[in-house]
Amino acid sequence: MDIIPLHLGVSHFHTPAAAVEAMQEAIAQHNTFYGPNEGLPELRNALAQRYLEDEGVPMPAEQILITHGAKHAIHLYLHSLLHPGDEVVALAPYWFAFPELIRQSGGKLVSVSANPEQGYSLNLEALRRKLNPDTKLLILTNPGNPTGKVYSVEELQEVARLLGEFPNLHVLSDEIYDGLGFDKPVPSFLRFEHLRDRVAVVNGFSKSFAMSGWRVGYLIAPFQILHKATELQLKWISGVSPFLQAGAAAATRNRHQIWKQFREDLEGKRELMRKELDKMPKLKFTVPQAGYYYTLQVEGCLYPQNPSSPFQLVEEWAAALKDQVGLEVLPGTNMGMANAVRVSYALPQAILESALMRLKAFVS
Amino acid sequence: MDIIPLHLGVSHFHTPAAAVEAMQEAIAQHNTFYGPNEGLPELRNALAQRYLEDEGVPMPAEQILITHGAKHAIHLYLHSLLHPGDEVVALAPYWFAFPELIRQSGGKLVSVSANPEQGYSLNLEALRRKLNPDTKLLILTNPGNPTGKVYSVEELQEVARLLGEFPNLHVLSDEIYDGLGFDKPVPSFLRFEHLRDRVAVVNGFSKSFAMSGWRVGYLIAPFQILHKATELQLKWISGVSPFLQAGAAAATRNRHQIWKQFREDLEGKRELMRKELDKMPKLKFTVPQAGYYYTLQVEGCLYPQNPSSPFQLVEEWAAALKDQVGLEVLPGTNMGMANAVRVSYALPQAILESALMRLKAFVS
Repeated sequence: MDIIPLHLGVSHFHTPAAAVEAMQEAIAQHNTFYGPNEGLPELRNALAQRYLEDEGVPMPAEQILITHGAKHAIHLYLHSLLHPGDEVVALAPYWFAFPELIRQSGGKLVSVSANPEQGYSLNLEALRRKLNPDTKLLILTNPGNPTGKVYSVEELQEVARLLGEFPNLHVLSDEIYDGLGFDKPVPSFLRFEHLRDRVAVVNGFSKSFAMSGWRVGYLIAPFQILHKATELQLKWISGVSPFLQAGAAAATRNRHQIWKQFREDLEGKRELMRKELDKMPKLKFTVPQAGYYYTLQVEGCLYPQNPSSPFQLVEEWAAALKDQVGLEVLPGTNMGMANAVRVSYALPQAILESALMRLKAFVS
Repeated sequence: MDIIPLHLGVSHFHTPAAAVEAMQEAIAQHNTFYGPNEGLPELRNALAQRYLEDEGVPMPAEQILITHGAKHAIHLYLHSLLHPGDEVVALAPYWFAFPELIRQSGGKLVSVSANPEQGYSLNLEALRRKLNPDTKLLILTNPGNPTGKVYSVEELQEVARLLGEFPNLHVLSDEIYDGLGFDKPVPSFLRFEHLRDRVAVVNGFSKSFAMSGWRVGYLIAPFQILHKATELQLKWISGVSPFLQAGAAAATRNRHQIWKQFREDLEGKRELMRKELDKMPKLKFTVPQAGYYYTLQVEGCLYPQNPSSPFQLVEEWAAALKDQVGLEVLPGTNMGMANAVRVSYALPQAILESALMRLKAFVS
């Protein structure tokens, strides 16, 4: 049986034509030599302009480092900020790569869970209990991966107030799905200008722009940390291809049109999936506010909640789902959530429909 | 005055058309999604085929990791091989980035100088004196950067024999200029198949293929080390853009034609430069056997060898050269050579001629 890959963090959209055309124009102009390590002014300026227009906050282009994708930006940031043993608090569920990225930089992950039944809203009290005066960093993913939760401005303000209480605490906000917020624009943590010396944002073109294979991301960070990260990028690897950056700049300038098109497609699929999932009472879920994943609580399919189930572990359930009906999903164990899986709906319509039929058959 | 950049490690050639066309074809086929972390089979196979055809040695494609440029390949390799305090012996002069790359991986650089008056030939006795049973790694650059020295098969055999004497010693051979050997093909250290469990080769597309802005390189290493490097690439950054790799694969397949064209252009410039340098007796040099640099010994322009010179340090001489006649050159201090500079001749003809006139005026 063919396997339908619901586990992947990549959408079915093609790279936007504007990006391809701009890249080809750069190549035609022989812009194929080394670019500046910190990034092409054209792209850094387009991004600065974006935050000014979308968030109303001035953001100097000099505070943006162009990196080889967002994972690379996180790696450079953590390596520049952390010392061995530093505590890093992450709001769970989180992106599955964070634990290893934190470990690689010598940090110690402390996880704060959110309640799916409350739509993964910020659990401020639980968070405060996990913080101490030496906690170095708080990581939030907004929109959430895998949850699709978008923090409201009020929730972000609560976090911002926490930084007042904890003067040594930094924040890293991973906003890579920010173009795919369905109901309202996703607020960036950059809006808290007075905290800019402790706030970093990581972003990139893989998710909101369907340019995963381009490997272009960026880091916005306090200058001292940004300078270290820039130096490490130069020492370890050098800067990003200038013609790819020209494509990313064009994508940035055309972002509203690109995002609108992607959102319209995804919104229909989100709704289709919601309707079908409603028919599978053993699976619990929250309708995502952004991105292209559902997080499914599968406890109702596992022993002991389901006494007749042959599966105790979510991994066993996922393996059987793949073996028996050819659906690959991502168990949440590395994402700081138990008994849940991440399921993508960024697939062509017919494939998604087929996947939902298979899921229904398997669950019932 | 305009500055002529003789200090850069980048040629004036345009990216080969075959690479651009193959990349555009890959984009037209929407090959713009994440590729495999270890690299595209198409590129790894083309490279394996290249070593089979050019060196007559079988090289499994699985032993090649595609990286974000050669610097990145070196970083991953050193991080996978070295433990803190490990000694790394490098044949000097060496590429200026090596000291920092070694330091970043916890290694301790030990330098072995070669004599310019002997054409930078391998000084086996000096090398043996710097090795001890615990020396972890020997780095050689073949062809040499900045020297343009190509190690003969006999010299490489001497190094290979040393590995017999030092059973814990590994070799890293940086062969990134290997397509630009003028007089005969550059032999790869991969030819010593019986040592393959201790030999690594790093290479890329920036120099021999004029694709510096593409950021594609590769690492061939013993499997155990390669697996670590592959894991680190996945953890820290993810793999290289698949459509860029499609371009690099086409460049590899067309290598002989591309290299022939580049060499013909560079050979004329090497000769022009030799003729002009012969008229500047204060500068000593060796005619490079590969690549696009001359290494100039400038002691004859410095105090005390030249008692009337206002310059004691090569850096002072280079700064005056830039200020007075607009020539930027690279002092060799970070390359393990004293009183010498690296000068590129990979420039358009008219600019190179102008540079040589300026140099002559400055020196005399």
